[in-house]
Amino acid sequence: MSRSHIIKGHICHAPEAGRLEIRENAFVVCEDGICRGIFDEVPEKYRGLEMADCTGKLVLPGLVDLHIHAPQYAYRGTGMDYELLDWLYKVAFPEEIRYEDAEYAAKAYGIFAQKMKKSATTRAAIFATMHTDAALILSDEMEKSGLISFVGKVSMDRDAMPELTEKSAEQAAAEARRFITESAARAYRRTKPIVTPRFVPSCSAELMAELGKIRKEYGLPVQSHLSENPDEVELVSRLEPEAAFYGDAYDRFGLFGREGRTVMAHCVYSTPEEVRRMKENGVWIAHCPSSNMNIASGIAPVRRYLEQGLRVGLGTDVAGGTTESMFRAVTDAIQVSKLYWRHVDRDAKPLTFAESFRMATKGGGAFFGKAGSFEDGYEFDALVLEDASEPTARELTVRDRLERAFYFELDRVGIVMKFAGGERIL
Amino acid sequence: MSRSHIIKGHICHAPEAGRLEIRENAFVVCEDGICRGIFDEVPEKYRGLEMADCTGKLVLPGLVDLHIHAPQYAYRGTGMDYELLDWLYKVAFPEEIRYEDAEYAAKAYGIFAQKMKKSATTRAAIFATMHTDAALILSDEMEKSGLISFVGKVSMDRDAMPELTEKSAEQAAAEARRFITESAARAYRRTKPIVTPRFVPSCSAELMAELGKIRKEYGLPVQSHLSENPDEVELVSRLEPEAAFYGDAYDRFGLFGREGRTVMAHCVYSTPEEVRRMKENGVWIAHCPSSNMNIASGIAPVRRYLEQGLRVGLGTDVAGGTTESMFRAVTDAIQVSKLYWRHVDRDAKPLTFAESFRMATKGGGAFFGKAGSFEDGYEFDALVLEDASEPTARELTVRDRLERAFYFELDRVGIVMKFAGGERIL
Repeated sequence: MSRSHIIKGHICHAPEAGRLEIRENAFVVCEDGICRGIFDEVPEKYRGLEMADCTGKLVLPGLVDLHIHAPQYAYRGTGMDYELLDWLYKVAFPEEIRYEDAEYAAKAYGIFAQKMKKSATTRAAIFATMHTDAALILSDEMEKSGLISFVGKVSMDRDAMPELTEKSAEQAAAEARRFITESAARAYRRTKPIVTPRFVPSCSAELMAELGKIRKEYGLPVQSHLSENPDEVELVSRLEPEAAFYGDAYDRFGLFGREGRTVMAHCVYSTPEEVRRMKENGVWIAHCPSSNMNIASGIAPVRRYLEQGLRVGLGTDVAGGTTESMFRAVTDAIQVSKLYWRHVDRDAKPLTFAESFRMATKGGGAFFGKAGSFEDGYEFDALVLEDASEPTARELTVRDRLERAFYFELDRVGIVMKFAGGERIL
Repeated sequence: MSRSHIIKGHICHAPEAGRLEIRENAFVVCEDGICRGIFDEVPEKYRGLEMADCTGKLVLPGLVDLHIHAPQYAYRGTGMDYELLDWLYKVAFPEEIRYEDAEYAAKAYGIFAQKMKKSATTRAAIFATMHTDAALILSDEMEKSGLISFVGKVSMDRDAMPELTEKSAEQAAAEARRFITESAARAYRRTKPIVTPRFVPSCSAELMAELGKIRKEYGLPVQSHLSENPDEVELVSRLEPEAAFYGDAYDRFGLFGREGRTVMAHCVYSTPEEVRRMKENGVWIAHCPSSNMNIASGIAPVRRYLEQGLRVGLGTDVAGGTTESMFRAVTDAIQVSKLYWRHVDRDAKPLTFAESFRMATKGGGAFFGKAGSFEDGYEFDALVLEDASEPTARELTVRDRLERAFYFELDRVGIVMKFAGGERIL
């Protein structure tokens, strides 16, 4: 498949904080998988490349989902009358137990990967379950989907249901290693393993120490959950009295940024100390507004994080979130920021569309390297979007069309082309 | 068109507060437009009626949108970076001015009515603009759509843009009368006029007094806005110092319930006095969670209203809301109630799916009489919904399928039949 091409259309991206750049009827060039920038006319040296004429359509970077649970996809949109800890035991854990069965995993992950392929997401950081074989099935399916993803076999050796608890820290560590080495053996081009302690309540200090060693030994990134819910934060302080704060329980074992790239989902209740540590350590925050509403966690102070220069991307957090639509995540983030401003902190200005769009593209993209923007040198992830399915009597600017495409979740119906890492996958 | 028929399927409705009734593979009977109840077997006397075999599909009452602005439909999903008063002047009012042009109105309202026809909504209370001729065009289009609706020519004689302000209270009252008499002359079967002062800031006391007379003279219902935003509430207290509270500025003129059925949109900042008056006067509240997020108004204390026995339905409030999807309104109401519980009032329990579903069906339906339920004697509004477009590896209960259909907004793609007042319109 060719990894060099040009797309003509209304090119929209957000290279700088708080500002959209929209170039109408322009050309975006991809050379061997790498973006070479946006041009009003095709430069001489690229004139031989294949051209997709998408005049009048919207062209935007692929979206980056920094937090999603593949095994929870099967029940998304159900069981929404619970709060976090109840929801885990009554809905999430019973479903995750089923992934011991490879046949069930193959069916469920097949559906998941197909839906991800059709979505606006080009890159994702994904949780599997604790089952190594099922996590490898998920990796196979994601590789086939064409998305670029980190897949994590979940590590958890305490405090869940017995059928969903690894027998010991040693066994859990051995399985984490097996997942990594088998992933490597499969020589994926787009899919990489990521160290995935479920969250502090599910991982003993012994297991955390082992995962810290594994992370270092293989040079892998880390993903987990942080300060999602007040009861959970309280539980962590009881379980790990030696940790100065929730995030410190990861940091003590080398699982909280610094030399290892780390993304932490939620951060709704991070203390000033924890925020300072995230900043120092360069930890990414996966802001998951839909999930934070659905399981009544609350609203993360994202404006504050942006002001302080933290690294923030967006996550759908299926199935705390109900949909894999990153367009929805973008508008949810705006909506909850308005409620946060109104009801919690009148100095925390609501997010603008441009700001939320940026978190979902270049913001989260940075976790993967140079991704989520059409700047020269970025990996080429792109969507071409048709928005004619929503007629209007009004003449709309391209800026308006982009905004309403997100509010209408036209990613569900309007994606006509999709590229990840320069390769066309839709 | 036959107004008598039977639908077989999984029948779901919410006749009692807080509880769904789900009858699997059952029969719901409509006789001459009136529901005769749900049966496990078709009773002898109905055996001759035409039967739609929708085995396995979801069958639910049509949804009731208690608050939507038809002229704002054209720009829905754009201009979402503003708060209420700015948004009115920069986005809403400039668009509404265009409805002076009948050709534009015909085009825009034609699109609106077609989208409403395809939506889950079977009944709606709709704002037009101040332009009488355009409001009649909207009424024509709604009548053709098959929905059952109240359409209001908006009355506004002060404090908007000059091009969107009626010249005097007398002229505004004369136009309100002209709208009502011309509506009557068109002998609609499904479409009725409703007295529609835009909101207190846009209506002089003289105009309010005239509208109160008109309401009484024609025996019409009333719709308007109430206590949506703190700045607006403050503005009303300055403009109408004689009113004890915002709602009193309507009540003084007989435009706030009592003998005249009234629905007030929003009620985010209603004082205890105002709430008491709404209860005494039997005023309906149109809760519009999407709009309240988008224009940063805040979260209405719906749990409190339900506890106090107020009449509450849901509205999409396009284009403060971005979509006409009442399924989305149902889940938005749940989501914001969770944030309200978490961040504003820990004694206000989040809404359950059953409660929100009920507000959107029987709750709002009561504004139209007996509607929004499959009980014997109710007007027959129904949807048949196909949810197979969202595959899952899991076996779902009918209750789960219903919940996820709302979270996935399957009203956008899955409606296979739609009936309003016993007549099939899709």
